[in-house]
Amino acid sequence: MQLAQAEKIKLLVETSKKLLRRQAVPHLKNLIDKTHASDVALMLHHLDPKEKQAVFSFIKSSHIQADVLSEMEEGDIPLVLEGLETEKVCRIFKEMSSDDVADILTLLPEPMSSEILKLMEAAQSEEVEDLLQYEEDSAGGIMDPQFFALDENMTVGEAIQKLQEESSEQEMVFYIYVVNSIGQLVGVISLRQLLTVKPQKKLSEIMSTDVIRVTTHEDQEEVAKLVSQYNILAVPVVDENNKLVGIVTVDDVIDVMREEATEDILKMASVGNVDVLDLSSLKSVRARFPWLLASFLSGLVALSIIGKFQSTIGKMAVLSGFIPIILGMGGNVGTQTSAVIVRGLATGRVVLDQLWKVLFKELKVGGVLALLYGVVLGFGVQLISGEHPRLGIVVGTSLFLVMTIAAVLGAFLPIIFKKFQFDPALATGPFITTAIDVVSTLIFFNLVHLFLHI
Amino acid sequence: MQLAQAEKIKLLVETSKKLLRRQAVPHLKNLIDKTHASDVALMLHHLDPKEKQAVFSFIKSSHIQADVLSEMEEGDIPLVLEGLETEKVCRIFKEMSSDDVADILTLLPEPMSSEILKLMEAAQSEEVEDLLQYEEDSAGGIMDPQFFALDENMTVGEAIQKLQEESSEQEMVFYIYVVNSIGQLVGVISLRQLLTVKPQKKLSEIMSTDVIRVTTHEDQEEVAKLVSQYNILAVPVVDENNKLVGIVTVDDVIDVMREEATEDILKMASVGNVDVLDLSSLKSVRARFPWLLASFLSGLVALSIIGKFQSTIGKMAVLSGFIPIILGMGGNVGTQTSAVIVRGLATGRVVLDQLWKVLFKELKVGGVLALLYGVVLGFGVQLISGEHPRLGIVVGTSLFLVMTIAAVLGAFLPIIFKKFQFDPALATGPFITTAIDVVSTLIFFNLVHLFLHI
Repeated sequence: MQLAQAEKIKLLVETSKKLLRRQAVPHLKNLIDKTHASDVALMLHHLDPKEKQAVFSFIKSSHIQADVLSEMEEGDIPLVLEGLETEKVCRIFKEMSSDDVADILTLLPEPMSSEILKLMEAAQSEEVEDLLQYEEDSAGGIMDPQFFALDENMTVGEAIQKLQEESSEQEMVFYIYVVNSIGQLVGVISLRQLLTVKPQKKLSEIMSTDVIRVTTHEDQEEVAKLVSQYNILAVPVVDENNKLVGIVTVDDVIDVMREEATEDILKMASVGNVDVLDLSSLKSVRARFPWLLASFLSGLVALSIIGKFQSTIGKMAVLSGFIPIILGMGGNVGTQTSAVIVRGLATGRVVLDQLWKVLFKELKVGGVLALLYGVVLGFGVQLISGEHPRLGIVVGTSLFLVMTIAAVLGAFLPIIFKKFQFDPALATGPFITTAIDVVSTLIFFNLVHLFLHI
Repeated sequence: MQLAQAEKIKLLVETSKKLLRRQAVPHLKNLIDKTHASDVALMLHHLDPKEKQAVFSFIKSSHIQADVLSEMEEGDIPLVLEGLETEKVCRIFKEMSSDDVADILTLLPEPMSSEILKLMEAAQSEEVEDLLQYEEDSAGGIMDPQFFALDENMTVGEAIQKLQEESSEQEMVFYIYVVNSIGQLVGVISLRQLLTVKPQKKLSEIMSTDVIRVTTHEDQEEVAKLVSQYNILAVPVVDENNKLVGIVTVDDVIDVMREEATEDILKMASVGNVDVLDLSSLKSVRARFPWLLASFLSGLVALSIIGKFQSTIGKMAVLSGFIPIILGMGGNVGTQTSAVIVRGLATGRVVLDQLWKVLFKELKVGGVLALLYGVVLGFGVQLISGEHPRLGIVVGTSLFLVMTIAAVLGAFLPIIFKKFQFDPALATGPFITTAIDVVSTLIFFNLVHLFLHI
């Protein structure tokens, strides 16, 4: 029976640390040999810099080093490669697909990356340079330029033979893409289909011509949506002339989905879109500092608003006790609503032109929640506190108004962000809580001033 | 060129609404015929209940209805099926895989689901009943009991023949699983491999015996991690005796990943783990109400703490102005930290036994951020405000302490939750913000009391 994934990695990390300390190199090499490349990559992530470099250098062949490298965390890669000679790096890159090489090159410091590009074989470096021109998160940026495509005039028998001859370079052949004489994508055939029809048939006779495809500049999130929506294993990527230039396979899509979900979560929590776990403490501070600034500034605005009502508070100090509950409830309803909307936009379940419908529903839900909590707080205060005959009414009404406005803002801002092509997840982070803090303070103290006459 | 997904669905929804209004049934049927089953399912989601039922009934065959049904949103399914006769539902179910049928049955009201189970063919209903015994989010709950497995003594030639004979029932054959005489999983062969070796070879000679597998009770999140970690297209599911009982394919894993990411986001935003977009407004209110209660109660606690310092505030009303900034900054740092940790735990990049290492790093990062903002606020207040000679120092120190504690809590709570097998995403939602509100109020007013002597 298998050990749970986390247990296994933990054991691997401990064992290799122990073997490194004892300098038991043959044992360590043996351990690495028997471990799946993906697990070696994960294990490396939990080792210290020196240990990472040592373990990586003990991997048997450039081929396996390439496998490990393409599974490694981005932050670990420069660390490991900078310890190697440039020639060695080129030998490893030769074993990798060009899209992975292009991704890694963007992580390396400048003199090193261009030196490597110069040393690489012309054919590969050209492919890599082609890929480097695409946006990192576009279909072109994540596609593999090595794919299996056959001419439409080929027969099924010839196709099977071709498939058997091909080296294992394209390890994951899911579909056979069919192209015409100028390389344009005209159809698709599944491996399975190939096995179940007569070998004399032409590919053009059995292919399906309704091929789901994307262009090179398509956003990677859209590619992921297509794969998830249509349950397909690979999406062909074409240029503006419909010429087949690469494929995006389901394993890349899974990485994209994980990445996008992480990005959304971190953006919604105002951590920025950098993956902070990988950064040093100092870089972490630098990444998170500006996001806190929004909350700091809104705090200062709230401070100056409350400052204007100093004499009111001086006369009735209990008022300040309601600040945490009103701001807190407002913030929470706003976060709830915006999380629902942001996720709905990401999964395609909220569509942009439903703006009014969505706003209306969130207004209803937020309004009812606001009414419930507003009434409870208002009545409670009215019953218990004897400070002022209308204090309960003012506190309850404030909570009701703040929560209702927060719900509408929480729904409205992400949609507006999306409309203007900003990431809606960003709206949830600094903008909504900031806006709510200021609006809440304004509403509460103005109502107090108006209705309690103090 | 393709329309963007969202555009396409929007157009489909508008067109079908128009055709329904005009009762242009043949046109509508024609439109549905030409649309991919996945798109029909998505389109149905955006129609009104009556329209959903009408469009679904216009789908040409039970076979295509089955395809659409397995892609539909959970909330839409009962609505559409309750409008049909039980016999019709059984005919549709006959075209679906047993795991999808089992999932749908759990969504239907009781008399209907058992009636359907009775009317279904014995073979299928048995399979479905077997599946219903597994937890919904376990490997057993998401696996497909129809898979392609061959005996280890078969030759490659026989295997290819068998593959060609098989009906298209198992549409996605990625790997050929090899079993021994009592059905235990002993190996795996890729389709590709089968094509590239001599037909006389026995499967046991060419199979890989190192098969990544899971048991039926494994959590679906673990299955998703395996698929993403090892870039595989399907995971075989075995029972406690290593007997092969089903497979989980990559398309199911993609659904699981999307679902789990949504769950995490909604839990972190305190919306609960229900997908609120699907619920009626009333159900939405009911789902969200209890999550706001935590924030309400912590607000009341803060209210009573501040109440104890009424005379202090009465003497220096400006103090209350600092409540929003101190609580807000504390809450934000806490949310930042916990989001990083929760996501790290979900993707396997934070491992449980790193507790102290993670806490230490977050203490450092949080501490530096706290120091920066604490000093800025403290100095600012000291310079501008003439209320009290030590006000700046107290305010700055409070902010520093609150932010540091918030960072540690934000890292600590999710890890503790995970240790005790609760969902760490839950910690971020109500618990952290609640704890921080109370701690912040306590720290600030006690420091004021101690050092300003008012």
